[in-house]
Amino acid sequence: MNIVLLGSGNVATRLGIAFSNAGHSIVQVWSRNIIHAKLLADQLETEAIDQLNELTTDGDLYIISVLDDAIPSLIKQLDYLTAPVVHTSGSTDMQVLAPFFMDYGVLYPLQTFSKSVDIDLSHTPFLLEASNDAVLEKLKSLTSSVSNTIQYCNSEQRIKLHIAAAFSCNFSNHLYAIAQELLSENNLDFDLIRPLILQTAEKVMHALPSEVQTGPAVRMDQLTLDRHRNQLLNHPDWFRIYNLLSDDIIKNIKR
Amino acid sequence: MNIVLLGSGNVATRLGIAFSNAGHSIVQVWSRNIIHAKLLADQLETEAIDQLNELTTDGDLYIISVLDDAIPSLIKQLDYLTAPVVHTSGSTDMQVLAPFFMDYGVLYPLQTFSKSVDIDLSHTPFLLEASNDAVLEKLKSLTSSVSNTIQYCNSEQRIKLHIAAAFSCNFSNHLYAIAQELLSENNLDFDLIRPLILQTAEKVMHALPSEVQTGPAVRMDQLTLDRHRNQLLNHPDWFRIYNLLSDDIIKNIKR
Repeated sequence: MNIVLLGSGNVATRLGIAFSNAGHSIVQVWSRNIIHAKLLADQLETEAIDQLNELTTDGDLYIISVLDDAIPSLIKQLDYLTAPVVHTSGSTDMQVLAPFFMDYGVLYPLQTFSKSVDIDLSHTPFLLEASNDAVLEKLKSLTSSVSNTIQYCNSEQRIKLHIAAAFSCNFSNHLYAIAQELLSENNLDFDLIRPLILQTAEKVMHALPSEVQTGPAVRMDQLTLDRHRNQLLNHPDWFRIYNLLSDDIIKNIKR
Repeated sequence: MNIVLLGSGNVATRLGIAFSNAGHSIVQVWSRNIIHAKLLADQLETEAIDQLNELTTDGDLYIISVLDDAIPSLIKQLDYLTAPVVHTSGSTDMQVLAPFFMDYGVLYPLQTFSKSVDIDLSHTPFLLEASNDAVLEKLKSLTSSVSNTIQYCNSEQRIKLHIAAAFSCNFSNHLYAIAQELLSENNLDFDLIRPLILQTAEKVMHALPSEVQTGPAVRMDQLTLDRHRNQLLNHPDWFRIYNLLSDDIIKNIKR
């Protein structure tokens, strides 16, 4: 499949590399920023552009992976395209594409991507939505070349998944970052906590999180909770996070 | 080494099994609750007791793994013991043991344990503290039979590690539980989010969390943040957690 990538961020980078490795051709990479476009295009051995009037009309599929708030102005300028146009956004309704295209859809990889971190996508769920069956089949064919988990998902469900991802990925990572800071302040190596972080994730691969909650809050161990709070008095933001999350764990037991 | 375990919870269970598998003898398991004591003692093929006056005085090491607030009253009743007595608590100062024993210390495994989840402890850091070198050597010898990461750590540092563990493990797991609830409410399978959870943890095995933060908050993508908030209006607790963590991610960028 001849794919045109619009965007050059974390998602565009990881999808471009995966589709290219699976034998598809990325025929162009467009980005508002030509340096970013070139960085990705060089990895994919393809052409970089920063002008939309240089965009090829020969693509089989146009994948838009830009910031959510940049989607509306971008798609308005692409309304002449006849091949399917899809976005990869977790929280943008597919219908934003409807006024501009005949064939359109959404290809949402439920994963955390960093430009610098290689990833095998075979276990990454791809959530697909499309304006018609032909587009859906095209998206299935493309994504099944890189992943074993392909699923239809409408826009309402997709935003719920996106929020669930914010909690379980973005916010978890921020909690790791708070731990990183706490350890660093006390001359303790982040390596000490890495096995715990990995085990915490691995535990829920075969159990549900609500079944394997540990720590002072779920034990309602007020002595330890108070000791921890005393140590956080110099960090009012973390103190608030500590209390809000501990209280919510305790509420969960009582629900 | 002949070990006496006082306690039968998650930590006592996992340590008992690991030390026993490494060739040490667990000679007794004491618990206030004889049913819990028996459950663990049966796995270790040893004796269960619930009366302290049945406690053997022949142990080489007494390991106390009970709730933090149960430690003071327990150790008061053990002051006749001559072999080293250690606790496994992350947030209890070693000095609580000083009035009652000649030889004492702390053996703190930095890990999340569940009775029902098997674990290989070889990558689990054991943080040790002791009243004297002989006890420290004894604890090193014991823990190095199950783990490759043994480190000295004083009580002040240990509570910092324990708080870092609360953030990166207990609270992360609770965020997974929120995601579990959100998905379940929308008839979406928790399996969809499992690969994301694992990848989030695996990413920080070779990078620092602050370097690999992703999501709408770190992009300061207000459109997506607002869309997510709109979807959380029916969940005021999660709405507050969402805002507090997003705000803290944004503050972190500006720090």
